[in-house]
Amino acid sequence: MSETVLYALDLAGTFVFAVSGGLKAVKYELDLLGIVVLAILTGVGGGIIRDVLLGSTPPAVFQEEFYLVVCILGGFVVFLGASHVEPRWREMMIADAIGLGVFAGVGAVKASSFGLGPIGIIMMAGLTATGGGVVRDILVREIPAVIQKDFYASAALAGGIAFLMASFFDFEPLIQLAIAAIITSGLRFYALFSKIKLPKARKPQAPHSKT
Amino acid sequence: MSETVLYALDLAGTFVFAVSGGLKAVKYELDLLGIVVLAILTGVGGGIIRDVLLGSTPPAVFQEEFYLVVCILGGFVVFLGASHVEPRWREMMIADAIGLGVFAGVGAVKASSFGLGPIGIIMMAGLTATGGGVVRDILVREIPAVIQKDFYASAALAGGIAFLMASFFDFEPLIQLAIAAIITSGLRFYALFSKIKLPKARKPQAPHSKT
Amino acid sequence: MSETVLYALDLAGTFVFAVSGGLKAVKYELDLLGIVVLAILTGVGGGIIRDVLLGSTPPAVFQEEFYLVVCILGGFVVFLGASHVEPRWREMMIADAIGLGVFAGVGAVKASSFGLGPIGIIMMAGLTATGGGVVRDILVREIPAVIQKDFYASAALAGGIAFLMASFFDFEPLIQLAIAAIITSGLRFYALFSKIKLPKARKPQAPHSKT
Repeated sequence: MSETVLYALDLAGTFVFAVSGGLKAVKYELDLLGIVVLAILTGVGGGIIRDVLLGSTPPAVFQEEFYLVVCILGGFVVFLGASHVEPRWREMMIADAIGLGVFAGVGAVKASSFGLGPIGIIMMAGLTATGGGVVRDILVREIPAVIQKDFYASAALAGGIAFLMASFFDFEPLIQLAIAAIITSGLRFYALFSKIKLPKARKPQAPHSKT
Repeated sequence: MSETVLYALDLAGTFVFAVSGGLKAVKYELDLLGIVVLAILTGVGGGIIRDVLLGSTPPAVFQEEFYLVVCILGGFVVFLGASHVEPRWREMMIADAIGLGVFAGVGAVKASSFGLGPIGIIMMAGLTATGGGVVRDILVREIPAVIQKDFYASAALAGGIAFLMASFFDFEPLIQLAIAAIITSGLRFYALFSKIKLPKARKPQAPHSKT
Repeated sequence: MSETVLYALDLAGTFVFAVSGGLKAVKYELDLLGIVVLAILTGVGGGIIRDVLLGSTPPAVFQEEFYLVVCILGGFVVFLGASHVEPRWREMMIADAIGLGVFAGVGAVKASSFGLGPIGIIMMAGLTATGGGVVRDILVREIPAVIQKDFYASAALAGGIAFLMASFFDFEPLIQLAIAAIITSGLRFYALFSKIKLPKARKPQAPHSKT
């Protein structure tokens, strides 16, 4: 039962991520293909990078193509209904936060099963959850949002840490995954409402500045 | 015999792609090394990404270094004769269309031999044919041309679809490859002369727009 | 003994690279997470890309996480002391040149042990030494410095060539590595003081120019 729930949430997260990729493509006036490409890369890009790093190739999404179908669907939804989708920003953010959590949990479990150490597991949680968005932003020439602002990747990393702490208690992997997902999504929700931010460094008076 | 023809076309395509990478480097006033790096990445980047995704490492071009030699040669040709090469735009576009087709066919065959499903095969056709150009554009900070305009990646994807359809008829892989290549190159030629374009989504009046 | 020295130099190079990544993040006003992410990617990104290309996954840094610790440390040093670190530009450049050499040598040895040919070995020397910086620059939307100016990647490639030449003399791998590292660092030091540059192509009067 819980695996079915997880699968459903994973697909839902993929769909929402794909839609966010498609919307970014529309913002930059890319054509239908650009919309679908960004939808796919945003929806499954994080998992693909994770699998390549772990040496789990071909990546999982090429072995279970339904994830790709979901992304393509997301791209077409954006293409056909771009003017209707974007205004539903609130619903998007909620689904996005859930996807972020599930992806972080899945990334941590997979990294752990490949024998990575604690830092690697935390990094893979963050990478799985945010890698697709980073690829999306690079392709449209934006500095990736996750390293610029917002308590977003940080939530996924915190999920990875929660996963590690849960592993001390000998829970089943699926329980650990759920804990990581709930912590991640919970922190993300909290951040959405409270606008917490990470601190920045005091910028030096750079003698090499181009300005 | 047909394998020799394929090999020659593959090398010719690699050379033309490498030259296009070198020319982009010249446009941005990169130095000799930048020209050669962009020539290599554009010439063999798509195949490298494909091989990494398929888990076929080290990528083929590192096992048959003549492809790299061809790219380096392409870079030097640009370096020495940049002012002569670019005006021959028409010849470049023709060779580029042939390269696009061969790369799409090779990508589809290799993806198929690694057991990928239909969507994966189509994606690998497109990725092999256009991945190098995407890397080139990212390195010089342009939004990749293939997701922005032109009937280009679409031709490669159509080649992948043709490959799949041909596989229903139990042709040999080399015949399937040829069919994919001819469809891709043919569509690309047609697009060059007729200026067909993919549709764009109607842009929503974005309430979050930065403008 | 010599292995210990190599290990120490490798860690020192990683630290300096990580600091350079962190400083770039500060320049673009990224937050703490952005600083740490850029520190990690710059410090170990080149080695990760090399290992993925060679099929040596998970990459070495995930098996010996102390490198990641060193990067994170570098990020925090920048975060806490950005205004103190940057003025020490001279010391940074010296340490960076040493790191460049060690990374080039390590890359060449590893490529050689995976059976790559001469061009592949030279490319892996350059990629290991400069890949992290390329990723750093792409993430903040700069055209990678190494393909734009400065005798930097060229030094690493020269180190790879030195490695190949040394292999004719049946030295031990560690000696070959040392030769590659010394040539690379030496050329880089020379370039820092003498401002040697690679030539550029004469730019054609581009009929397609957007200006």
